[in-house]
Amino acid sequence: MANSSSGDSVTERIVRILETFSAERTVQTAAEIGRRASLPSSTAHRQVDALVEAGLLERDDEHRVRIGMRLWELALRGSAALRLRQAAMPFMEQVQSVIREHTQLAVLEQDEALFLERLSSPDSGANITRIAGRLPLHASSSGLVLLAYASTALQDRVLAEPLVRIAADTITDAAILRRTLTDVRRLGHVVAPGSIEAVSTGVAVPVRDGAGTVIAALSVVLPRDAPTSAALEQLTAAAAGIRAALSADRR
Amino acid sequence: MANSSSGDSVTERIVRILETFSAERTVQTAAEIGRRASLPSSTAHRQVDALVEAGLLERDDEHRVRIGMRLWELALRGSAALRLRQAAMPFMEQVQSVIREHTQLAVLEQDEALFLERLSSPDSGANITRIAGRLPLHASSSGLVLLAYASTALQDRVLAEPLVRIAADTITDAAILRRTLTDVRRLGHVVAPGSIEAVSTGVAVPVRDGAGTVIAALSVVLPRDAPTSAALEQLTAAAAGIRAALSADRR
Repeated sequence: MANSSSGDSVTERIVRILETFSAERTVQTAAEIGRRASLPSSTAHRQVDALVEAGLLERDDEHRVRIGMRLWELALRGSAALRLRQAAMPFMEQVQSVIREHTQLAVLEQDEALFLERLSSPDSGANITRIAGRLPLHASSSGLVLLAYASTALQDRVLAEPLVRIAADTITDAAILRRTLTDVRRLGHVVAPGSIEAVSTGVAVPVRDGAGTVIAALSVVLPRDAPTSAALEQLTAAAAGIRAALSADRR
Repeated sequence: MANSSSGDSVTERIVRILETFSAERTVQTAAEIGRRASLPSSTAHRQVDALVEAGLLERDDEHRVRIGMRLWELALRGSAALRLRQAAMPFMEQVQSVIREHTQLAVLEQDEALFLERLSSPDSGANITRIAGRLPLHASSSGLVLLAYASTALQDRVLAEPLVRIAADTITDAAILRRTLTDVRRLGHVVAPGSIEAVSTGVAVPVRDGAGTVIAALSVVLPRDAPTSAALEQLTAAAAGIRAALSADRR
């Protein structure tokens, strides 16, 4: 960050500015953005002006700033996330219509499970997940699936670090986590009761692309003691359908 | 663009780089990006490297570049598009399950209709729309609704320019377009047969926020000569539901 006139440091600054926005904080002043991004006030104001000018941020009547529709458009238009999500949606809708609980699609991103999509019905139960939100790999059912099929380098990295307890039943013991990952690969699914929320059980399966590589996890969030077999059956069929759609879609 | 060391020109450059990606062009080399963004090769390579470093672009094994999952995440996490889409989704699913044709949500963005969401079933008919894609305001049913409730300044701008013919029945006469917009406001909906594709009829209604401001258009694409009354009824009910959800959601 030393040389503020070079292109890459401006890029970093833009990322830091965008990172100050969240689901809980969708509107900010330029001064607040500067404080939260640890940027000098004049730099923050100048950079926010440039981002508003480019349409990546938008300013409202009260001079507050939010994420611009143009950024959303540029991010989605050519993105792998959108292609995967489009291929997955009809199958996710099918799962959701039968199971009637939160149905979710997640990918591995920077050592966490990043949620691309969530379908819910008004009567679905508790769920901490948000679209474009993240959960730790060792704690969520989606994360456990993604971790099970990740590189051994990533697995070793996660296993070497402290496994943070999210709920009473989060796996926090490295040996148990290692065994769980072996089980996921053997069974082709995971059932994770109470690892994120005491009242829920996550059930997840891997989603493979046409070449057989695991590229995502498909999951449902059930009430803690609900039977899991119908959900597993639906998820497995959906993952097979997505794989076939991705194979057909390849160019 | 003269001063390449200033923050705003780097911002413009980043936007130009992101704009080279599209649904048809999701993977490019840095050299291709430079050519398409009209940037000197060294500048393009350096800026692409910075964007890859920041996670906004990703590089594959063959050194080609695509839109990064991180950009998608930053764009969505704090965005109004995501909030609107989340509020709209259950109602869109309801419309889709009854009508069984493409169901779409669009907003006004830079004088065009930008599509935030599209739900389809395998048996839905022809449809040119893509998520994060755009259509002209005067030609699409969504666009006609958005234009009808837009500022008079925007209406005058659109009416003053040539109205491009997209299909045989696109409205290309300014006087007819003006009358159509009046009808949309009076009826609260539009039926646009063959304006985008000869084989389809678009049916759209306005979506209002809690304060009553039109913020989006909800539409279905029917086969050209299909009856429209069931779709209109479903769309109107869905728009009312979305408005109520947005009112309840306000903070």
